[in-house]
Amino acid sequence: MAPIIPVVFQAGDAGAWHIERIDAVVGPLLPSAARLSVSSAYTPAPSATPITWTLRGTAGHQRYVERLEKEQLVAVQEALGRVGATNAALIPIRKSDAWWDLAQDERRTIFETRSHHIAASLKYLPAIARRLYHSRDLGEPFDFLTWFEYGPEHAALFEELVVTLRATEEWKYVEREVDIRLRR
Amino acid sequence: MAPIIPVVFQAGDAGAWHIERIDAVVGPLLPSAARLSVSSAYTPAPSATPITWTLRGTAGHQRYVERLEKEQLVAVQEALGRVGATNAALIPIRKSDAWWDLAQDERRTIFETRSHHIAASLKYLPAIARRLYHSRDLGEPFDFLTWFEYGPEHAALFEELVVTLRATEEWKYVEREVDIRLRR
Repeated sequence: MAPIIPVVFQAGDAGAWHIERIDAVVGPLLPSAARLSVSSAYTPAPSATPITWTLRGTAGHQRYVERLEKEQLVAVQEALGRVGATNAALIPIRKSDAWWDLAQDERRTIFETRSHHIAASLKYLPAIARRLYHSRDLGEPFDFLTWFEYGPEHAALFEELVVTLRATEEWKYVEREVDIRLRR
Repeated sequence: MAPIIPVVFQAGDAGAWHIERIDAVVGPLLPSAARLSVSSAYTPAPSATPITWTLRGTAGHQRYVERLEKEQLVAVQEALGRVGATNAALIPIRKSDAWWDLAQDERRTIFETRSHHIAASLKYLPAIARRLYHSRDLGEPFDFLTWFEYGPEHAALFEELVVTLRATEEWKYVEREVDIRLRR
């Protein structure tokens, strides 16, 4: 089923994840902070420590994936929170107006037929667990918050995945991207 | 372009729209109230009068419409807020888990190929202006809030549109629907 999973990411002095680095890939950076907390909620809980920034999103149904692809993905994808997956990346992305003004068939064509987004991702499963949160409808500064978890033995594989995705046609529509690397 | 347009609908004692009736089509009713206010915001402003219920959503890019259909729709659709459009309907809808668990190609097939949703709507434009707000990602009780505006001379045409949409295959996935009729 496709339940709605809300998320609040908060950077500051508290949280289970240690922030190793924050890089601006396209557009402005997010301010640096020591730790990141991840909670499943629509709105942030009151915090005892100062918060540097907050990002919100919701994961739900898939927007472009077709039936056969869905079955392939479900067969190999891994859950978040695996014991050995001590590395994580949070990659918030904002796409241009040109992307959002495309029709569904045009986005889908770029997404899979030309960018091979799903096919490219399949190669990296189950080593890298992934969840896509949507933020655009929430009035957030980013459209998507992509969250990845993997073990240190798959760090090189993860770098390859990131390079592969950034080389796709779909990525030409990205007008802001920040790359946040974390360790538990 | 596809800007994000947030909306807050509030039923109570205040607002530009007089609530003529509220009917439960499928599932539980919403409580009755005298008036409805419509504001473009992510969260409700503090109200001086009691609020009976609040529904929130955001309109943004279209999820299923393809390029040719988009051009047809843009060519004939009308803006909200026309002087003569003194009748309105707010129809909040929730779809079943079975719908959200479908893949994009399956939803699209039901939406247009089998339900002729877009083709059916085109017939009623520009007489009936329409905006679809998405609510599912906001953690709201409904998935969509559909808003229609039309002049009294098109009241019969609007009833025909509603009957047509409810007879489609897509509508079999609706597990809650409330029909709220309004006059300005």
